[in-house]
Amino acid sequence: MTLKLSLNTATVRKQWNLAQIIDGCVRHGIEGLSPWRDQIAQMGLAQAKKSIRDNGLTVTGVCRGGFFMEKDWKSDNLRAIEEAHELGAPALILVVGGMPAGSKDLPASRSYIEDCIAAILPEARKAGVPLAIEPLHPMQVTRAAVNTLEQALDLCDALGPGVGVAADAYHIWWDPKLKSQLARAGKRILGYHICDWLPATRDLFNDRGMMGDGLIDLPLIRSWVEAAGYRGFQEVEIFSELDWWKRDPDEVLRTCKERLAGC
Amino acid sequence: MTLKLSLNTATVRKQWNLAQIIDGCVRHGIEGLSPWRDQIAQMGLAQAKKSIRDNGLTVTGVCRGGFFMEKDWKSDNLRAIEEAHELGAPALILVVGGMPAGSKDLPASRSYIEDCIAAILPEARKAGVPLAIEPLHPMQVTRAAVNTLEQALDLCDALGPGVGVAADAYHIWWDPKLKSQLARAGKRILGYHICDWLPATRDLFNDRGMMGDGLIDLPLIRSWVEAAGYRGFQEVEIFSELDWWKRDPDEVLRTCKERLAGC
Repeated sequence: MTLKLSLNTATVRKQWNLAQIIDGCVRHGIEGLSPWRDQIAQMGLAQAKKSIRDNGLTVTGVCRGGFFMEKDWKSDNLRAIEEAHELGAPALILVVGGMPAGSKDLPASRSYIEDCIAAILPEARKAGVPLAIEPLHPMQVTRAAVNTLEQALDLCDALGPGVGVAADAYHIWWDPKLKSQLARAGKRILGYHICDWLPATRDLFNDRGMMGDGLIDLPLIRSWVEAAGYRGFQEVEIFSELDWWKRDPDEVLRTCKERLAGC
Repeated sequence: MTLKLSLNTATVRKQWNLAQIIDGCVRHGIEGLSPWRDQIAQMGLAQAKKSIRDNGLTVTGVCRGGFFMEKDWKSDNLRAIEEAHELGAPALILVVGGMPAGSKDLPASRSYIEDCIAAILPEARKAGVPLAIEPLHPMQVTRAAVNTLEQALDLCDALGPGVGVAADAYHIWWDPKLKSQLARAGKRILGYHICDWLPATRDLFNDRGMMGDGLIDLPLIRSWVEAAGYRGFQEVEIFSELDWWKRDPDEVLRTCKERLAGC
């Protein structure tokens, strides 16, 4: 059995707005959706909520909270929690941010990030919105200073209930401890994201591949995710300045559907 | 006190051959040298040995063995051990290779790599040449499937005496477990390599920065390396297609010397 497909809206964000993406999902039989907040804002939260519901789509996450190095991080994260609550999302995805400008103190950043999550956690719990810490690939440490599943789970252990992880195959596939840490995560896996690692990656942030075009053994990782107890969607998230963001978005969605069988 | 400076010859390999590099080190008062095998071959092993000795330079490593996915890996690694022995190197650096073409089986690759190191280890022990497993940054997993210090040390534990690690700040600086794993490594740190992580890295392999131009807290990492008991050289290794490989090599060596005070 294959897990259901969800579309992270970043995958076609250069071609379509949220209304077009919702229509596209319906047209291609994609049942889940994980919207980015700028797209929600553009459509309007109430309208986005209505349209997603009227079209029978399941929200599998809201992207994103975090970025704790920003000046208005607290108010922005509280708004993000409220939006995730409104949309009935199973989690607010946290991309936690890197180091403040001018700093080289990575340990201090990591400690600060923990404090910031602790500061918004009571509101998240009240709203019934779990926070999903997403470890990013170590090459993206300037975007997130949480870089392994083990580190994210150590944070979860320290922070207590209401915090879990988003497991994105692109960020974690290389990790020698992946299998054991996914097992450790168990029910704390709040989202599972897929795409592929291109053998000749040209950019550290925006050159992800379509599932099947790269080196990630997605069926193996899915088996570990499922063994941990995850029963949610497989969410496709492809940042691709040089390829998929340039294509006809209907072709992108069709390809995602076709490739799901091999994931 | 600052550790002595060694020049990994990759740093100016586009501009100079080994004879020119040796002259350059002498001219700039750089006391250590870590040559690549293609440059040794071009000069001839006997001549390289003589020239390095006559100029009073210390060999801090030979780059590289490993690449166990190549057809002739065994004979090539045995030759590399012999060359490292001839040059009196404290270690042969192992860049272990990624996955064979067409494979997505990273766990199998890792297990194969361990078998290959075990197969050459008796010869390395006989020659008195320690093998230094170099974990590469996870973004370079196609070049080496050993990607954290913890993984490298687990290999060392399994393989027994005669194997240690090369700690390259560029590859490991992001690691949340860096401090504890360096402490665990102790005397098994066979080399310490430095350069810097550019905030806007443009290439996964050949866009390293000069010390001081990036985000790595080199004095902090050096303090951990020294606390582990390391008393060797700091070896500058900069792969830089877009910048330092295009500059006057005398400027490169002068800059390395100048920046050492901040490392």
